[in-house]
Amino acid sequence: MKILDIRETAIPLRSQLANSSFDFTEMTTSVVAVITDAVRGGKPVVGYAFNSTGRYACGAQMRARFIPRILAADPKTLLDESGDNLDPAKILACMMRREKAGGHSERSIPIGTIEVAVWDAVAKIAEKPLHVVLAERFNGGKIPAKVFCYVGGGWYTPGQTIKDLQDEMRRHLAAGYTQVKMKVGGLPLDQDVKRVEAVLQVMGSGTNLAVDANCKFERNEALAYAKALAPFKLRWFEEPCDPLDYALTAELASVYAPPLATGENLFSTQDVENLVRFGGLRAHDIVQIDPPQAYGITQYSRTLDMLARHKWPRVSLFPHGGNQMSLAIAAGFGLGGAESYPGVFGDFGGFADDARIEDGFISLSQRPGIGFEGQAGLYKIMRELAA
Amino acid sequence: MKILDIRETAIPLRSQLANSSFDFTEMTTSVVAVITDAVRGGKPVVGYAFNSTGRYACGAQMRARFIPRILAADPKTLLDESGDNLDPAKILACMMRREKAGGHSERSIPIGTIEVAVWDAVAKIAEKPLHVVLAERFNGGKIPAKVFCYVGGGWYTPGQTIKDLQDEMRRHLAAGYTQVKMKVGGLPLDQDVKRVEAVLQVMGSGTNLAVDANCKFERNEALAYAKALAPFKLRWFEEPCDPLDYALTAELASVYAPPLATGENLFSTQDVENLVRFGGLRAHDIVQIDPPQAYGITQYSRTLDMLARHKWPRVSLFPHGGNQMSLAIAAGFGLGGAESYPGVFGDFGGFADDARIEDGFISLSQRPGIGFEGQAGLYKIMRELAA
Repeated sequence: MKILDIRETAIPLRSQLANSSFDFTEMTTSVVAVITDAVRGGKPVVGYAFNSTGRYACGAQMRARFIPRILAADPKTLLDESGDNLDPAKILACMMRREKAGGHSERSIPIGTIEVAVWDAVAKIAEKPLHVVLAERFNGGKIPAKVFCYVGGGWYTPGQTIKDLQDEMRRHLAAGYTQVKMKVGGLPLDQDVKRVEAVLQVMGSGTNLAVDANCKFERNEALAYAKALAPFKLRWFEEPCDPLDYALTAELASVYAPPLATGENLFSTQDVENLVRFGGLRAHDIVQIDPPQAYGITQYSRTLDMLARHKWPRVSLFPHGGNQMSLAIAAGFGLGGAESYPGVFGDFGGFADDARIEDGFISLSQRPGIGFEGQAGLYKIMRELAA
Repeated sequence: MKILDIRETAIPLRSQLANSSFDFTEMTTSVVAVITDAVRGGKPVVGYAFNSTGRYACGAQMRARFIPRILAADPKTLLDESGDNLDPAKILACMMRREKAGGHSERSIPIGTIEVAVWDAVAKIAEKPLHVVLAERFNGGKIPAKVFCYVGGGWYTPGQTIKDLQDEMRRHLAAGYTQVKMKVGGLPLDQDVKRVEAVLQVMGSGTNLAVDANCKFERNEALAYAKALAPFKLRWFEEPCDPLDYALTAELASVYAPPLATGENLFSTQDVENLVRFGGLRAHDIVQIDPPQAYGITQYSRTLDMLARHKWPRVSLFPHGGNQMSLAIAAGFGLGGAESYPGVFGDFGGFADDARIEDGFISLSQRPGIGFEGQAGLYKIMRELAA
């Protein structure tokens, strides 16, 4: 078997959202289709993925370097030992030829998106959901029935009142979620604290609420927020500062007892190892790598191996993304959970149309592969790309 | 005055070179032209730059995000206080709108290349060489007459003999250079040591020879090379390991007394601050940021401010690149020196055609701007882009 073609297209997210640090009005994402000559259920197997949200489309790098390297390779060198399926690790190594050390994000996002699409094809060829394939390879075959899932919400919108914010959280609770996350850092500290207190009235307890500063704060403001937020004992305080400022992260961890969270803006295993070596994190802090943006699932498994050497518990890992890819990864690797962005990011946020949320847990797709075929709006875009 | 247009084109380097870690056969670079409505010497002022070597062309990001943001801005908001010239810091801030924290290399290279082209225009509008403008703004007006410059050579080539390597070094000495750099890590340690010993016979002293492993080594090999090379007391041992592995860098610095060198694969001020915080470097170690690949000259000045807070001497800074841009930057900021790749990287390596090398120092271009107009081969490409 072999890969016949790899296609990509850039799609605007058309989101009007804003957090404390930037808005999404120009945001795009790259959708990828890996077309194989394998046939399952009478149809050619095509693997799909997209590069999550928050980083721009990266099709130029795919077209100039990564797709040609894969298509130029002897197809036999990209297969697993059985010869019946693709080997994502070999395809990753093929894409990394002639790449210089460091400088990860320029290539980790295009490479990771293609690699995750390869996994979609691998699982479809194996005729299993991706989370089952991952659980068999990377988690001792432990196949969960459901995954903990929280809502990333509480954005800043023009004219929003405290009641609007509380009503949003009530909707998330009514939909079956038990934990929500809200933005901080977009207003002065005292007003942000009022927002947090108002949401806590709805959520009942700090353990049901995380806050996200999207890397907004310099040292003094980060310390001021940490001091003001600590009494709420929130589920976590996400990205208080520059994602690469390990020294400030360590200083915050030394004064802020409840969990911190970070990692969605780290793109290599080495950066994550620096975070755990120098960032002063504790086992209850949350690490949020986004696998399709960080070289894909094979590299994510290597990051988990590195974290295991540092005694990091998998339950403290929540992959960034809020989509069907991160859900399958959270399920397959046995992570702490996934995030959800209901009604946000158009076709690129959310899960299978038939997914059920109950008591904070989400059901898993039983479709072969990642399960994009269960997302009508997104699958329409993907199917057209492969047509 | 205002920017009328910004154009870019990708050019293949067509290099057959290889170091210990990768080859350059697919390598491309982006050439940029910033076209203004200012007129000097009867001609419109155009600023030029390219994204150095070793990282691929990045025109797609320029076209999708950074050029449109600049062209959409009110031109008055991009001018300095006099209103008669461009303000690179304001143009940098304009390009950074709607960019998420972290993930630097995906944008630091396109942004830095455009920003350096803006500086070329700024200096041409001021009718001064760029190194003079930089010295006035960032180094107390100290304008040097010449800059120390060493040759980056000693590549691995098929069929190369020890005598070939020695002859290459003799040519560099005959051309007026006093220090050379050679590759290590492409052969087993004992053979690499023989190559180093052979070059030392030509160079006379370890202080005239640096070696470059291009990030090749894992821990054991890095430590073995450090042990074997230490007795030679070389000028420096460059990139022994992963550029982001600060812990291993610190371990090497604790056992290897002569200077280490690294930094060409760090793309943000925060990454460089992590290097000096966690990498165990000493004041005699060399830091080699490549400004056009790391957000440009404005950001480089901020990196220097950060390094000054850490008591880092400017004489320990050698910008990566081996081109007219890094030469002007080394001269203008008063750095330790520049590197040179004579006869390598085609039109994209080297300096003004009339530059003179004498006793290890290179003369500076007195042309307005960076001085690309003195490089006939390169300027032909640039001029066509602006035509």
